[in-house]
Amino acid sequence: MTATASIQTGPKITNGVNVTALRDTIEAVKGNAEIAKFNFRATNTWLGGEKNRSTIKQFSGALQEHRIDGNAFVVDNGEAEVLLGEDRAPNPVEWLLHALIGCMTTTTAYHAAARGIAVEAIDSRIDGDLDLRGFLGLSEEIRKGYSAIRVHMRVKTNAEGATIKALTAMSPVFDTVSRSVPIMVNIETC
Amino acid sequence: MTATASIQTGPKITNGVNVTALRDTIEAVKGNAEIAKFNFRATNTWLGGEKNRSTIKQFSGALQEHRIDGNAFVVDNGEAEVLLGEDRAPNPVEWLLHALIGCMTTTTAYHAAARGIAVEAIDSRIDGDLDLRGFLGLSEEIRKGYSAIRVHMRVKTNAEGATIKALTAMSPVFDTVSRSVPIMVNIETC
Repeated sequence: MTATASIQTGPKITNGVNVTALRDTIEAVKGNAEIAKFNFRATNTWLGGEKNRSTIKQFSGALQEHRIDGNAFVVDNGEAEVLLGEDRAPNPVEWLLHALIGCMTTTTAYHAAARGIAVEAIDSRIDGDLDLRGFLGLSEEIRKGYSAIRVHMRVKTNAEGATIKALTAMSPVFDTVSRSVPIMVNIETC
Repeated sequence: MTATASIQTGPKITNGVNVTALRDTIEAVKGNAEIAKFNFRATNTWLGGEKNRSTIKQFSGALQEHRIDGNAFVVDNGEAEVLLGEDRAPNPVEWLLHALIGCMTTTTAYHAAARGIAVEAIDSRIDGDLDLRGFLGLSEEIRKGYSAIRVHMRVKTNAEGATIKALTAMSPVFDTVSRSVPIMVNIETC
């Protein structure tokens, strides 16, 4: 028996994303669609007035339960003074913007990595218009939720803006919100 | 001139909600619709891989800017290990559930208060189904976001479950998500 030199290669990492693991996941899902089925959950307790608190913990996916003994994230909803609260936490429609811009950012990083596109920075701003007459029940014609959302995303990459824009549209929260509310997405590459 | 007894009455509070201020808001909006126009905002910075951070601060509404010198809420997105992250924060689709259940809860408290319905407790659970094949681009027929969401809300009140269910549907985030994803809402009163 002769000694052979062995080269230990680690996973391929692009944009901080483990592309080897991502490709392994895709192959696994192709072999068994049940692996792709996820169920996410939260519980929530009202704390009086505008205050309530969610606990985000266990979820299922890839044929198993996760965070059984792990992290429990405890997060609050509030309202600012003008909406009759004490401004102790973002309000639910602000949390929706956080979910949306976060999902578009993570999705861009992951899908760019899968395509071999290096991304060095992503900085965004997002805003949404909401007419309180809908919530107050003063008009049937005015929506209770957002009527329009705008996203401006500045991405440091060599890829074209149109390519990055297509990646953002793979986002699960973008899928949910954009089928309900017009979202104007502006991508600036640099 | 005779002295008259004056009774100093404070605002009417129901469910921890200042109903006097709520009614004043409704009357003000009826007099000038511009008061009802709100614009909520966030900025977001990618921190590599699955990590990004939102800052939620200034917004406009009731004809002025708010939180100019006030609170800035700094909140993170993450992903669990099975989704190639380090599980340092809820992921965007979990934040969406937090926004939705929180909005339904706050809306129930406010609209019940406006109708003189006392609510003593609200405890909820929410979950959503998501098939990762949509996000991974493995099927055009499978949505990238949630395909179904279920809400179970336990409300301590003398009102009927159907009354409470109608109140939850006044929620702005419910409006946004329910036009895109089927949401099954189950109300249990006690």
